[in-house]
Order: sequence, then structure tokens, then C-alpha cells
Amino acid sequence: MVRGQRTGPANAITDVAGLRVGHAHRTGDGWRTGTTVVLAPPEGAVGGVDVRGAAPGTRETDLLDPRNLVERVHAVVLSGGSAFGLDAAGGVVHRLADAGVGLPVGGPGECVPIVPAAVLFDLKRGGVFRNVPDAAMGAAAYDDAVAAPEGRALETGAVGAGTGAVVGGLAGGVGSASAVLPDGTVVGALVAVNGAGSAVAPATGEVYGAQEPLGGEFGGLRAPSAEEVAAWGGPAEVRLAAENTTIGVVATDLGLTKAQAAKLASAAHDGLGRAVRPSHTMVDGDTVFALATGAGPADLEDFQRVLGAAPEVFARAIAHAVLAARGGPHARSYRTVFPSAFPDGGAGGGVGDGST
Amino acid sequence: MVRGQRTGPANAITDVAGLRVGHAHRTGDGWRTGTTVVLAPPEGAVGGVDVRGAAPGTRETDLLDPRNLVERVHAVVLSGGSAFGLDAAGGVVHRLADAGVGLPVGGPGECVPIVPAAVLFDLKRGGVFRNVPDAAMGAAAYDDAVAAPEGRALETGAVGAGTGAVVGGLAGGVGSASAVLPDGTVVGALVAVNGAGSAVAPATGEVYGAQEPLGGEFGGLRAPSAEEVAAWGGPAEVRLAAENTTIGVVATDLGLTKAQAAKLASAAHDGLGRAVRPSHTMVDGDTVFALATGAGPADLEDFQRVLGAAPEVFARAIAHAVLAARGGPHARSYRTVFPSAFPDGGAGGGVGDGST
Repeated sequence: MVRGQRTGPANAITDVAGLRVGHAHRTGDGWRTGTTVVLAPPEGAVGGVDVRGAAPGTRETDLLDPRNLVERVHAVVLSGGSAFGLDAAGGVVHRLADAGVGLPVGGPGECVPIVPAAVLFDLKRGGVFRNVPDAAMGAAAYDDAVAAPEGRALETGAVGAGTGAVVGGLAGGVGSASAVLPDGTVVGALVAVNGAGSAVAPATGEVYGAQEPLGGEFGGLRAPSAEEVAAWGGPAEVRLAAENTTIGVVATDLGLTKAQAAKLASAAHDGLGRAVRPSHTMVDGDTVFALATGAGPADLEDFQRVLGAAPEVFARAIAHAVLAARGGPHARSYRTVFPSAFPDGGAGGGVGDGST
Repeated sequence: MVRGQRTGPANAITDVAGLRVGHAHRTGDGWRTGTTVVLAPPEGAVGGVDVRGAAPGTRETDLLDPRNLVERVHAVVLSGGSAFGLDAAGGVVHRLADAGVGLPVGGPGECVPIVPAAVLFDLKRGGVFRNVPDAAMGAAAYDDAVAAPEGRALETGAVGAGTGAVVGGLAGGVGSASAVLPDGTVVGALVAVNGAGSAVAPATGEVYGAQEPLGGEFGGLRAPSAEEVAAWGGPAEVRLAAENTTIGVVATDLGLTKAQAAKLASAAHDGLGRAVRPSHTMVDGDTVFALATGAGPADLEDFQRVLGAAPEVFARAIAHAVLAARGGPHARSYRTVFPSAFPDGGAGGGVGDGST
């Protein structure tokens, strides 16, 4: 573990100054899906991506190849809805263009917003296969990000792209975390956890991503009782059905080149590999985007430290997703299956948890 | 040139059995843009892609990495509208899902259509910057493809994704071509030509892609007069403005692996490199998809022949695009600038050409 870290004030990706997050989602009446947007500052953030799962659904990833022209992205969209959900990005593109934010290409106000996106598979988790995010849901997530008052706490769990998420048979969701390095550099992550593998150790019921907490971020979380582990019966088998995918964003206020941003996205995948086992399977489209908001280029030693921190932050974000997840007819939540893991007996986060 | 070739009956990508093409577009009232869809058979075609330009706008290309799961795509969407135009693919995705076509993922009729897409820059060619293709235009292109009577000739020129296209300062458009190899294998291409470089030789006014015609496909096309070349003044300068991009599809009825399909897409780029000079610049998002409809795997010698033919077919398709292009306020057409190149003095294809 990188020494001398502490969490940022929000312990969330929004600790990277200039980034805003918005969610939109719909549940009930056959729905259980949503969209999350991470908004860069208006001037954009240097972007990168690493698509490491074998069943990805993506949009505008090719332009992030470091050999290519565009350096800065204006938002990243994460969405449920599998391939259908890629439409959500279009709603964000149009909202940004309305606001005059994008790559300038013509006269005043004429710009093309750069909005890479990735989707996860949550079809039919609410009951109806074709109830999927669309451009309007993307626009609503954008509006949520823009309307957020300064300092609003980031919502996690069954929100946005994580609304219908399931990981290893338990409810997944959105999680976030941050780290402030000794030199003041901030690294943050946001993830929608929906992997085929398990975020929970079969033998102990412990959350993999919570193995190396920063301070008391997990609030006295402990190994659950042997009885609960036995009653759980272990994670869902990793079947060859393309009904998964974990997607996320890692961000820093360090100034990076585009190639360094791609490297940062790769590093975060190591955190996914630690926190969801297995990850990156043939039926996961695991994709991580990177955003760098600082004025570059970074000193190589500084970048090396950020690379070391990124997997940890990403893994912690996954743990927060699992711990904040709410169950329902689609899956039970960690909190419901392992109440003994929590000092409060699992009551604290159970609000709205309809699982049994 | 590969010996013993002839064109298919339509000299178009539709000579590859099972492929259908549809266009939708809008001109006038500030519009000059559109969308083209290449529909695979319902069972899909093995897909590949090569993104070789430095300013691409794409959707669902990562799943085409040969390491990844999905083998077959159900349609390819080419569209104007730059990043905005990626929404057109969503309309095709929903239409295919309505028809029950896609990757099966659940119960009966539950499937996820795989629709890779790429866009070109034609913003403001009709006058209004934000008049761009949307999901409805994609759906209309799909409907056009499905409604086409058997044997309908493929429309080219200022149609679909080529409606607002410009190449080297002259009007671009959609072009198509095919070749039947001596063993009966068919190779076809469809392209929307919108490159920063020129499709016409500055010194002679000749169309690069027409250098090696099959049979009489270009109808007695000849080098234009020196007077016309002098009056032309040469192609537009290749400036550092991201207002370009050539996108296309190369297809064969040979059975290919997914990795071979990616290789086929790469080979077609050589045809682009011949027919538009320069291509693949920092302000071109040049992207070629490949579709293989046959039952694989191919014999390596057969595949090698297809690879040899693909650049030629792709270059000829580009030539057909330039020759069928219609001019307008956005750009003059080849036919208007070089009437002496045509046996009929340029009159034949000038219908609807509003250029001066």
C-alpha cells in the first residue's frame, strides 16, 4: 500500500477538483437501470481508456488512442442497458453542446463534445428486457450533475449506472473513493460494479476491496460470522452468459499526457482484478476511463506514485459499491446476507433495501 | 492488380449475398447530412475493424478486437454528424431488436443487436451546425434497407452518410464497387468519402481510384483537358481542422475468422491510401469495417487473394463516390469541374447538381 495516504474530504472522485457526478435511474414498473455521468471541467480533462474485458460495449474510445488527435474529453458516461444504453451518451453530448462545451471546430459556440462511454449488462433486472436508458436518461444524469450544490455528497449504491448491477450474485452498484497522496496529489475513482466474478471471498465473506482501508472509511467493518458465510452458500457461478461488466473512471488532479492517462486506466484495472475475482472474463466488458485535470506534464516520479495508488483507490471504490448496494428481487445485498459484518448489525445501510 | 476479376452484377457491396444497404438523409432548410446502414443477414456477419485515422468517432469497435467475445455483427452504421451522428446507430439497434435480430442473451426474442458505427464530419455543410443525424435517421436508413425490393440498384453520390461529404474541396459522397474473383469469391465495398486529402490528381485532374477499372465500369472516363485542370486550381489545402473523415465497409462472402476480418479491414485502408492522398491524417478519422458472410474458416490462399483484391475494390468504390457526387453551395462536383473527362461532357450525372 502506498504510504502516507489519506482519503479526500468526500472520499469520492469528486475530491478531484473540477469533476462533477450526476445520476439518473428508474426503478419499478419493469425498470431497474440507470446512467451516471462524470463531468470534466468545461475545458475538458486529458482522457485515456483501457478496455480489458472481452465483452465490451463502448463509444468514442478510439479517439482516446494516444496516437490520435483529441486530447481532452468533456464527460464520461457509464450506463446500464447493454448496447442499448450507449444512447445515453448522446443525451450528454447534446446537453454539453447546448452549454457551448466541446472541441471547438468552427465559429463561436460551434463545438463537438467528446463523451466516451461504456455500458454494463443489466437487461431484465427490473423485469422488462427493453426498459433501457436512452438519450433522455443521459441528459437527466447531466442535469443532476450540473444542478448539484457545491459539496453535495456523492450518492452511491443502487444509483445511476449501478441501479441494476449484480456482482457474483449479490447486488452491485456505484461506489467511489479517493486518496490524497503525501504531496497533495488527489486520485479518485468511481465504479459501477456488475462483474461475473465475486467481490466477496467465498471462504470468509469478506469484501476483497476493503482489505486495505484508509482510516475508518468502512466504519468498523469486520469479517462476518461463520454461520452467515455458510448460509450464503458462496458467490454465483461464473457462467458463460454475457450479463455482466464492471465500468469505471479513475481520475487525478495531476497533469498527464494522453498516453499517461491510458496507462493510468490500465493501472486501475489491477484494482478491479483484486476486488472482483475473476475479472476481465469473456463475459465481462470491463472498461476503465482515466481523466487528468491538472496542467501537465507530470514528473515521472509523481506519475509513478499515482499509478501505485490507482489500483487501491479503484478497489476501495468497488468495496464501497458493494457495501452501499441495495438488494431487491434481482439480488440480495451484502448488508442483508452478512449483517454481522457491520457494527450496527447491518441496519444502517438497509434503508430502502427490499431484499429478503 | 489481381488477375481475372470481374465486377459483380451490381458492382456494389450488395453483390455480397445477404447484405442490404439503406440510406436516409436530409437536405435543405439548413440540412445536408445523412446516415447509411449496411445490414448483415439476420444471423450476423463476422466483423472486424481498423481505425487508422487520427480523429475517429466510433461506437462498438472495442468488441471487434479479435481477443473479445462477440464474433458477429448485425449491421454497420456510417453517418454524418460527427460525434452527434453516433446516435443514428441507436435507431438501428432498436429496429433490429424489434425484429428479433441480435446476440441472444435471454429468453425467446431477447437479444442485443451488435451495431458498430463510425461518423464523418459534415457539420454546417447545410448551413446549421446542429442539424445532425439522430436515432430516427438511423431507423429510417434501416427501414430503407429492409424495404428495398430485390435487385434494387444501390444509390450512390449525395446520399446517406455521403450527403454532406467533401473530399479535397470537391463534393464527396457514397460509392460502392465489387469484384468477383476467378474462384467465384465476391469482395465488395461501400464508402462515404470525406477526406482532407484529394481524390483527384493535382497535375492531371484524374481520379486516383479509377486508375485500374474493371471492365467499362467508369464508362469511358478519361483525363480532363489541361484547361479544366488549370481552371480548377488544385485540391483544397489539407488544413489542421477536424472536418473530414472517410468511413466504409469492405465485405466478402468468404468465411473468415474474426482476426481475419480485422486484417481485411486493414487491407482496405491501402485502397483508401491510394485513392485519397493524403489519407489517415491527424484530422481524418478514417475507419473501415469488414464483414464476412461465409461459413469459415477460409483456406489461407483464398484469404490472401481476398486481401489482394480488397484495396482495389475499396479504391474503385471511392472513385465511384467522386464520380457520382453532386455539388452544391458546400462544394463543386468533379463532374462540374471536369466535364471533359466524361464522354457525354459531364451531362449524364449532372442531374440535381446545383453547383456552379
